[in-house]
Amino acid sequence: MRIDVALVPQEIEGRNLENTTAIVIDVLRASTCIANAVANDCDGVIPTVSVEEAMDISRAYARDDYLLCGERKNEKIDGFDLGNSPLEYSLDRVQGKKLIMTTTNGTRAIRAAKTAPNVIIGAFRNITACCRLAVTLNRDILIVCAGQNERFAMEDAICAGAFVRELSGMIDIEESDGCRTAHLLYDTVHEKLGEALSQSTHGRNLINTGFGEDVKVAAEIDCVEVVPVFHEGHIVAMDVSGGVRVHA
Amino acid sequence: MRIDVALVPQEIEGRNLENTTAIVIDVLRASTCIANAVANDCDGVIPTVSVEEAMDISRAYARDDYLLCGERKNEKIDGFDLGNSPLEYSLDRVQGKKLIMTTTNGTRAIRAAKTAPNVIIGAFRNITACCRLAVTLNRDILIVCAGQNERFAMEDAICAGAFVRELSGMIDIEESDGCRTAHLLYDTVHEKLGEALSQSTHGRNLINTGFGEDVKVAAEIDCVEVVPVFHEGHIVAMDVSGGVRVHA
Repeated sequence: MRIDVALVPQEIEGRNLENTTAIVIDVLRASTCIANAVANDCDGVIPTVSVEEAMDISRAYARDDYLLCGERKNEKIDGFDLGNSPLEYSLDRVQGKKLIMTTTNGTRAIRAAKTAPNVIIGAFRNITACCRLAVTLNRDILIVCAGQNERFAMEDAICAGAFVRELSGMIDIEESDGCRTAHLLYDTVHEKLGEALSQSTHGRNLINTGFGEDVKVAAEIDCVEVVPVFHEGHIVAMDVSGGVRVHA
Repeated sequence: MRIDVALVPQEIEGRNLENTTAIVIDVLRASTCIANAVANDCDGVIPTVSVEEAMDISRAYARDDYLLCGERKNEKIDGFDLGNSPLEYSLDRVQGKKLIMTTTNGTRAIRAAKTAPNVIIGAFRNITACCRLAVTLNRDILIVCAGQNERFAMEDAICAGAFVRELSGMIDIEESDGCRTAHLLYDTVHEKLGEALSQSTHGRNLINTGFGEDVKVAAEIDCVEVVPVFHEGHIVAMDVSGGVRVHA
């Protein structure tokens, strides 16, 4: 199986991915929040680029049925229900709720990958579940690193490398240059994963603004079994048969 | 000094680089050819994206004064004088000649970096000379990997990492995520540099089409002392005082 890694989303914008399973990674922190939210039985996540888009979408729902989620400069947006800390996405907060989440980098990466028949949202927390499903889908795999403000983000490449490592234990793989680089990067840092994430530009920035715990949470491997997939504008859980939970 | 590495040119397109020294790397094979050509005293290199642009520019010169250079699918272009093998750019072929060279990836990277006051063309062959000049210029440094067809190319990132390693021996450096990744990549593969280049997608492709010797030549470190810089549409030698050789 061919495994490709796009180190920034711009690498694959405009490409036809109809024979590819895409895995989008925005490990600090959107992917990690989404893994928790879906594991805690939210009623799907709607990713949006802007606050205004999130507000517009929310008008279609009763106030008790949704949560507005997202951050600017690491802090929760004024008037929103949740910020972008994975620990906020707990069962008691998110169960049964539609999450309308503004996440610039993650959303851009999802849009770059949208022609793929399946777009999985991956993080360290759900690597094995994601890889099992991707292997079952039996197409070439493209891992898209969301990056940060159109630039490469090391934490996403390290996580992509962890996916490649996991996939290489399940199947024979053929690696692209981006894939081999992410794989080498993960192998180099994996014994000190938390430290490596803390040293990334975004990791340092989170630590400096009081979100160091989130970096530790993001580095935890295989805590949840769910596979979030982007399906008709919503991120929902997909089971290993390829079925998705129906959303409202 | 802050050192940044753009792993693909799209990362920095549209950015203002007026306080930055840019180093563009397209190690297989344009940068390597240019290092040889400038060392062998050519009368400057004019990079162009298309064959048509190269032909148009050539009309301004007498036939004995220029060489048309470049490749498509690794082979010399029909009617051109030189292909893209570094060994072709020898003293007896290029001395005193204007080289009009079509190189898609390298040219795109140069254009992405063009707002920088100095754009150096770097390769393994001239690392130390390039780094010395970049340090003398005393601005932040941005290394731009040319990549291949808008995708990440491992050989350029490895070479970028070699530049970072060299710079870190000359000055205190502050690394971006791309910089740290390139640096780790180089440290991981540097003892088997030729092998690493041979295993890149482009390296394998060159070997499979009969250009394996070029990959070996591209992996040779510090063979020439020249620093090619992009200056008013021409690539010419710059000396350590910042002066450029006058071109016709």
